[in-house]
Amino acid sequence: MPTNNPRIAVDAMGGDFGPSVVVPGALNAARQGGCTLLLVGDPDQIEAELAKHDTKGLSIEVVPASQVVTMEDKPSEILRRKKDSSIHVACRLVKEGKADGVVSAGNSGATLACGMFVLGRIEGVERPALASFLPTEKKPVVLIDVGANVDAKPYHLFQFGLMADVLAKTVLGYEKPRVGILSIGEEEGKGNIQVKEAYDIFRKSSLNFLGNVEGRDIFTGDIDVVVCDGFVGNVALKLSEGLATSMGRMLKGELTRSILSKLGTVLAIGALKRFKRLTDYAEYGGAPLLGLSGIVIVCHGKSNIKAINSAVDMASTFVKNDANGRLVRALSRNEELTMFLRTRVAAEGQ
Amino acid sequence: MPTNNPRIAVDAMGGDFGPSVVVPGALNAARQGGCTLLLVGDPDQIEAELAKHDTKGLSIEVVPASQVVTMEDKPSEILRRKKDSSIHVACRLVKEGKADGVVSAGNSGATLACGMFVLGRIEGVERPALASFLPTEKKPVVLIDVGANVDAKPYHLFQFGLMADVLAKTVLGYEKPRVGILSIGEEEGKGNIQVKEAYDIFRKSSLNFLGNVEGRDIFTGDIDVVVCDGFVGNVALKLSEGLATSMGRMLKGELTRSILSKLGTVLAIGALKRFKRLTDYAEYGGAPLLGLSGIVIVCHGKSNIKAINSAVDMASTFVKNDANGRLVRALSRNEELTMFLRTRVAAEGQ
Repeated sequence: MPTNNPRIAVDAMGGDFGPSVVVPGALNAARQGGCTLLLVGDPDQIEAELAKHDTKGLSIEVVPASQVVTMEDKPSEILRRKKDSSIHVACRLVKEGKADGVVSAGNSGATLACGMFVLGRIEGVERPALASFLPTEKKPVVLIDVGANVDAKPYHLFQFGLMADVLAKTVLGYEKPRVGILSIGEEEGKGNIQVKEAYDIFRKSSLNFLGNVEGRDIFTGDIDVVVCDGFVGNVALKLSEGLATSMGRMLKGELTRSILSKLGTVLAIGALKRFKRLTDYAEYGGAPLLGLSGIVIVCHGKSNIKAINSAVDMASTFVKNDANGRLVRALSRNEELTMFLRTRVAAEGQ
Repeated sequence: MPTNNPRIAVDAMGGDFGPSVVVPGALNAARQGGCTLLLVGDPDQIEAELAKHDTKGLSIEVVPASQVVTMEDKPSEILRRKKDSSIHVACRLVKEGKADGVVSAGNSGATLACGMFVLGRIEGVERPALASFLPTEKKPVVLIDVGANVDAKPYHLFQFGLMADVLAKTVLGYEKPRVGILSIGEEEGKGNIQVKEAYDIFRKSSLNFLGNVEGRDIFTGDIDVVVCDGFVGNVALKLSEGLATSMGRMLKGELTRSILSKLGTVLAIGALKRFKRLTDYAEYGGAPLLGLSGIVIVCHGKSNIKAINSAVDMASTFVKNDANGRLVRALSRNEELTMFLRTRVAAEGQ
């Protein structure tokens, strides 16, 4: 339901730093964007963190959850034994209509499992997938899947493409998103078996399919949606973040090596700051988990305050734009979503 | 055989630009490094290109090859029908002892096929793999495989690790290379099935195995060898190149937007140039194909003059260091190379 005051359920216990990072990040978002926060987790820890900040005028509710999910917990065990964990409770708030979206920096397998089990999938979607917005030389590109599925089938890749196509249209406002499959050569027939079969499905679809794209094409801005398996996408995402960070550090090191370059740096500081923002992944913050009947934004475990801030902003924007409603409507009407799957099952049944 | 005047067979017809880029790139390397060039391909085109350059004092031989391999040619067809192609002839020169190494920017599937068929594999190596040196914040890292095998088995990954370990020791001089598997989480048990099984083999081996590493760890310089499947590695390599290039362009765009930042740029130009060199992939040029009984350096199809120059330099360095001889001796003595493979075959036979 679109609203101007989104209620965002934030998994306050998630991430490597828990409430000490998640709470201030969420508060910043609430100050800027006018959303209501439902901070889910251990009330004592959350209240202790809240006491350190100025929360005047903000709409905040603390929702108790007695259990904490660790990075070692298996998704199946969380569903069975940790029903009062912060992520499980946060998803229930959305299911029960008490919140409009969830943000979590916790164990992403747990978030996926709770999202699927508590919120359910959009009809026809086999596998929810994590989408990520990456900066490019021009407009952002959507990379999907960045980690929800490490063994996706070719028609899963196609479903990821369909979902990201809708996302690019509704959230980024792209008219006819240019869709490509991430592979190791542009020509048809390049890639592993999974990619080759997916190519054939995409080619027959209604998507604006450009064919295979290579790693080097992602950042030029000439492609809008890049589809891949969750293993490849996760490696690609983390590699991009790591390389951008390392390049930033190397640049800083070089610029502060001599008096002359230090002086130059002072004069060019505005440009360098804009460059840093262009390539700062914390600006983008979270990855929407597409294919669920509800808005779920997944953050890095290592998220800092700024990244959590961005992720809560993203959840609010999704609510305000009714992004998930539009995704549900576009996919539920969409015969293509399951057509190739049904064709395949029929062929195998013969 | 180590020598101070390596004879490098250069596939002059390879790459998107053919002799117009390959010949001047090779000439630059010959001028700097003192190697003998055997330029293989269409004599008319090669001579026409040579006529444009000053070749005085250089040791150059043109070796005729009447056929050209295209990007569309299948490796099996090249072996059968294109025995007089430039890459096939170049590999034969090494086999016959007339050259010490091959450099090609042509169809890499063809190079792999000719390398395997003409030169043969090192005993015990199942799958030759492409290694790539990537710049990091500290010393270079070896990424293997960057594209020779898109469907590698877990014990293939282990063989890649063993080969890259030897490479890091002999060419980079690393004493006890820290080896990791590229995955989507550091904990054991993270990743796809291929990675999980490989983890177990690496753990039992004599390698200095650090466990799983993530994309973000590649560029910190805290790991020396990163092992992955050729699909993932190729995506990772091209993505790194693309992102570094795009970041460079974005930085340049920002730095030339205002008078003040332009002035700053002039003052910091030395630092910016050093930064560009740190992240310029053409500096690294080629990827050695490990596991063959001979030195083969594979370049990008899109290689520029500088990249070809670097690749011929790399081939010369490999010859001078007897890198392949040391690889052959280290691997031939190495029981581990086939131990896990034999264990597996025995287990399956029961």
